[in-house]
Amino acid sequence: MTNPLVIFMPSGKRGHFAPGTPVLTAARQLGVDLDSVCGGRGICSKCQVQPGEGTFSKLGVTVAPGALSEFNAVEQRYDEKRGLKPGRRLGCQACIQGDVVLDVPPESQVHRQVVRKAASDKPIVMDPATRLHFVTVEEPDMDAPTGDLERLRGALATEWDLHDLTLPLPLLRSLQPVLRQGKWQVTVAVNHDENTVTALYPGLRDAPLFGLAIDLGSTTIAAHLCDLSTGEVRASGGVMNPQIRFGEDLMSRVSYSMMNPGGDVEMTTVVRAALDTLATELAAEAGITATDIVEAVIVCNPVMHHLLLGIDPVELGQSPFALATSDALRLGARDIDMGAVAPAARVYILPCIAGHVGADAAAVALAEAPDQADALTLIVDVGTNAEIILGNRDRLLACSSPTGPAFEGAQISSGQRAAPGAIERVQIDPVTKEPRFRVIGSDLWSDDPGFAAATEGSGITGICGSGIIEAVAEMRTAGIVDANGLIGSAEQTGTPRSEPTGRTHGYLLWEGDDRRIMVTQGDIRAIQLAKSALYAGARLLMDEAGVDGVEKITLAGAFGAHISPHHAMVLGMIPDAALDKVTSAGNAAGHGARMALCNRAARGHIEALVRRIEKIETAVAPRFQEHFVAANAIPHATAPFPHLPTLPDVNFNTASEGRARGRRRR
Amino acid sequence: MTNPLVIFMPSGKRGHFAPGTPVLTAARQLGVDLDSVCGGRGICSKCQVQPGEGTFSKLGVTVAPGALSEFNAVEQRYDEKRGLKPGRRLGCQACIQGDVVLDVPPESQVHRQVVRKAASDKPIVMDPATRLHFVTVEEPDMDAPTGDLERLRGALATEWDLHDLTLPLPLLRSLQPVLRQGKWQVTVAVNHDENTVTALYPGLRDAPLFGLAIDLGSTTIAAHLCDLSTGEVRASGGVMNPQIRFGEDLMSRVSYSMMNPGGDVEMTTVVRAALDTLATELAAEAGITATDIVEAVIVCNPVMHHLLLGIDPVELGQSPFALATSDALRLGARDIDMGAVAPAARVYILPCIAGHVGADAAAVALAEAPDQADALTLIVDVGTNAEIILGNRDRLLACSSPTGPAFEGAQISSGQRAAPGAIERVQIDPVTKEPRFRVIGSDLWSDDPGFAAATEGSGITGICGSGIIEAVAEMRTAGIVDANGLIGSAEQTGTPRSEPTGRTHGYLLWEGDDRRIMVTQGDIRAIQLAKSALYAGARLLMDEAGVDGVEKITLAGAFGAHISPHHAMVLGMIPDAALDKVTSAGNAAGHGARMALCNRAARGHIEALVRRIEKIETAVAPRFQEHFVAANAIPHATAPFPHLPTLPDVNFNTASEGRARGRRRR
Repeated sequence: MTNPLVIFMPSGKRGHFAPGTPVLTAARQLGVDLDSVCGGRGICSKCQVQPGEGTFSKLGVTVAPGALSEFNAVEQRYDEKRGLKPGRRLGCQACIQGDVVLDVPPESQVHRQVVRKAASDKPIVMDPATRLHFVTVEEPDMDAPTGDLERLRGALATEWDLHDLTLPLPLLRSLQPVLRQGKWQVTVAVNHDENTVTALYPGLRDAPLFGLAIDLGSTTIAAHLCDLSTGEVRASGGVMNPQIRFGEDLMSRVSYSMMNPGGDVEMTTVVRAALDTLATELAAEAGITATDIVEAVIVCNPVMHHLLLGIDPVELGQSPFALATSDALRLGARDIDMGAVAPAARVYILPCIAGHVGADAAAVALAEAPDQADALTLIVDVGTNAEIILGNRDRLLACSSPTGPAFEGAQISSGQRAAPGAIERVQIDPVTKEPRFRVIGSDLWSDDPGFAAATEGSGITGICGSGIIEAVAEMRTAGIVDANGLIGSAEQTGTPRSEPTGRTHGYLLWEGDDRRIMVTQGDIRAIQLAKSALYAGARLLMDEAGVDGVEKITLAGAFGAHISPHHAMVLGMIPDAALDKVTSAGNAAGHGARMALCNRAARGHIEALVRRIEKIETAVAPRFQEHFVAANAIPHATAPFPHLPTLPDVNFNTASEGRARGRRRR
Repeated sequence: MTNPLVIFMPSGKRGHFAPGTPVLTAARQLGVDLDSVCGGRGICSKCQVQPGEGTFSKLGVTVAPGALSEFNAVEQRYDEKRGLKPGRRLGCQACIQGDVVLDVPPESQVHRQVVRKAASDKPIVMDPATRLHFVTVEEPDMDAPTGDLERLRGALATEWDLHDLTLPLPLLRSLQPVLRQGKWQVTVAVNHDENTVTALYPGLRDAPLFGLAIDLGSTTIAAHLCDLSTGEVRASGGVMNPQIRFGEDLMSRVSYSMMNPGGDVEMTTVVRAALDTLATELAAEAGITATDIVEAVIVCNPVMHHLLLGIDPVELGQSPFALATSDALRLGARDIDMGAVAPAARVYILPCIAGHVGADAAAVALAEAPDQADALTLIVDVGTNAEIILGNRDRLLACSSPTGPAFEGAQISSGQRAAPGAIERVQIDPVTKEPRFRVIGSDLWSDDPGFAAATEGSGITGICGSGIIEAVAEMRTAGIVDANGLIGSAEQTGTPRSEPTGRTHGYLLWEGDDRRIMVTQGDIRAIQLAKSALYAGARLLMDEAGVDGVEKITLAGAFGAHISPHHAMVLGMIPDAALDKVTSAGNAAGHGARMALCNRAARGHIEALVRRIEKIETAVAPRFQEHFVAANAIPHATAPFPHLPTLPDVNFNTASEGRARGRRRR
């Protein structure tokens, strides 16, 4: 007589098992993804299954009553104490008696899929480095006087096949009280990526553990606090990077370190303290204990990377921009002074791609997965330094380009950070040349009724990065700015908003009682420098790849999420492409960090991928300068932009060709 | 035609090599022990060899002139700058041209034998965990922007076949400046036991590195500072264990921790600080920089072990005496707050045998190697707690016995630590019953002319441990004390030095102007308790081994070195044995630590050996109490001591059998 047939759903894995085989045993033998923390003792309830009833014609099996053993005493006790959903069984207690179909609900799967947070986020399949393992440790025996640690190791080897685990000194200190408090039962948090124990809990730990996915930027440190079993983001937040007081951008911080002996140590100290503060705040927001955070994944640019690690970034400020280390790093949280989290918590830092292309760019590559795409994809992470990746499954190239802070509102006459009151969207009527705009904090346009009331609180305080990009692009589209970036006079443009400002002109965007917001000729020049650098970087990679166009463009970064693809293309920030192929990836670096936190395999993947990426150094590429000069025009001196509508062929350089000639260019 | 024959001496390894083969290459291929730090660049001079000349009839070879290539430019430069001994050649430069006999001088051997410090010290063959490796690192290249660390790893892999080395964070911080200072040449100190880098030096480091062999005792912390290439002890010293203020002996420190929350942390803090101080002092004494200390080996008893690691020793104070961890430990020096040594220095702590038998006993086993002996050996490490090991190559047993501090002069009416002025040796004339003695600080006996002058500085201040043992044994031999440990009255013993002290008697050893040094009945009782515990422990192991006697006795420990075997046997501290088979091993624990420091293989050896040792817990063995009671008599109530001279059969218990009966016992 054949043994009963067992089919697990949704995987469809099936096999025959002798009557009396526990469901958990069958699942393990078939490689079915069924969780267990207590190792089959009927106390953790992670291995719950839902047996089907009746005929499953598709599967060709009929489940008779009594296909599983009776609800036993262990299950009854669990049900009374904690409650089992109707029909649910504990996989370690229920034994197979006859043919049966067993549904593994998502919460019983280790490798469950994380619900996407943003539509743009790639799905994450849970496979966290940190797992909980419940064991019973042999009590000490004077006649075989091994240490408590050695007996714990023995139990982990016997019950979980875990060998040669490291137990850091801070945990060794707590081992004896924990074992005695738990009456020789203990739940061990193991980081399987490093084969090290990260926490010990007396008895069975039922509560989840947490990890931080940290995007350590030059300006902002943003983090997600994630449940390491479900992947759920329990709290998100950010703090300013306190290094700002040592310099707004990366190179000014490198300079600070060069000019001030010990300056790097100061910057290391403040950024580490900020990480610790952020961990504490997010834990409080989620209502958890910060010491339940056992892991962190950090992505950052190379200068932040070195300063976090306590390495003077001086070499990153000069050719050949040598990184102290480029590989991924696995550290103790205490090594970087994170004192709020679990004492033995681990930190994983993604690999850097090159001296100017950091772990943040690696995280973007991980999140956006151009290596898995057929389409030739250009990924642009816009910031003070832009990271640019080009390629597809065949080949990947990367570079960084020094765009400067103009895209973030700095070096702009009315520029400001993205904050309530900042103009973020701009439209200019091509006929009347009159502008309308929206400010952060209100969904109304400036010509909508109620706009004044809606913005009374914030006021209208300046223009942020996305606002200045739209303003310049709209000015170009409306014929207020020519291809060379010159703002025309009132006479040339036909609008009194073109005002003379010394030897050049400015365009008045808004005038309040005590404030006038203008786009000046200097602003246009700053934006031209920034966008030329960005375009030239992309173009350099395209040269290297031997292509003249790309099939897909992804704008990454918190700022990238707010850029209008149309306006970016009018400006010539990015190469020409079909507008529907230009998308925003949101905070791709942060999402990449979260992937590496929730999925161990993602770490190996990005480590291998980074080695495959070809790095192009813009600072010394002779063609970069050439591309940079040609990209100064709006949108470009020579490159065609067939996907753009025709732009006015105006020229306000009276010194050379005089007034607009009415000729159109594409 | 056959290739030239090359014979290396003293190993005698030989082989034929093509003309032009460098001597170093030939040595490596033959597995000859020829050192090299620079990897064959002719700059470290570690690979020096001395070619022979003429006919070597025993070896069957004649060395003609021109057997090696001419002294080349590299050798000339080295000779001019640093000087080569006459006839010496650099093995990496000199090439084989004809049959040759090459002598490898001891200083060119890695595995040279360390000259013994004490006659009792077992020889150590150098095979240190730490080795220096000189490499040239590829300069950074913007087109292949790997980190400096990754290129260093590459060089270590290519030039030295070293892979997956860990580089701790503190070294990562110094990597970039070191590489640039050394113009991309760097000497890397690698700890091969842990596959980790422990120090980086720009260019070629020619100077030796150092290690500490530390014997962390309850009372004294002693250490040797060793040159890690020659094994030479460059400085030795000790400091008091500052934990003494929390309790004289181990159990009182455990009690302090139990009674005072946080008491363990206090004790951890002070002992770690003391280690750091000791490292600084020894470095100063040797005239080296403390940061050139890249390794330490520590041996200690379990309570010291736990307190050093920051583990509350409370479990060691109560049955079942569970160790938090028993295996050997490999830690960073910074993990135990050793701040004076190299930032990435490593610490190796020997395994513990049991809850009462620590890493110090393991070190004794390593140094004394009973596992390699045919003779059944009893090793006794005498201290507040005595560690006892019994066995030979077939089987090893170990236990500890709570002797208390009497052997160290505590609990003795005139007891004191071993220090100048303490009586350390005693003789009593069996006829006159008059004593003579020696004190620490003078080689004269008290009845020698000049004794008073010689001891004027120190005075005669008390009796130390070895002194009280000799005093009691001599009193027994002279018939002043009977087998039960009773001191007879002046009438019974025939000497006025027997003085009544309340209901018992004391023996006046010395009388000065302001001080009288007596051995009281209470002192005898304290020594009886201590020696009974020691004997009972040894006897328990003999029971377990099924033997009635041992073939060899080794007294270990700093104190053990000062005990007279004859007196110890008269007391019945140790079982009967031929006196020439009772030897002192000096500070065997400290020597074991030095072995583990200088020879990597010794670590693996002791780790394996400890697992083989059978542990006997005296505290719960029913026969221990029985043995203890029987051992109370001097030398013993029932066990024969055939190797002792006959002792006076006196009995001073007037309540029972009255005066001495004149019968002799053996």
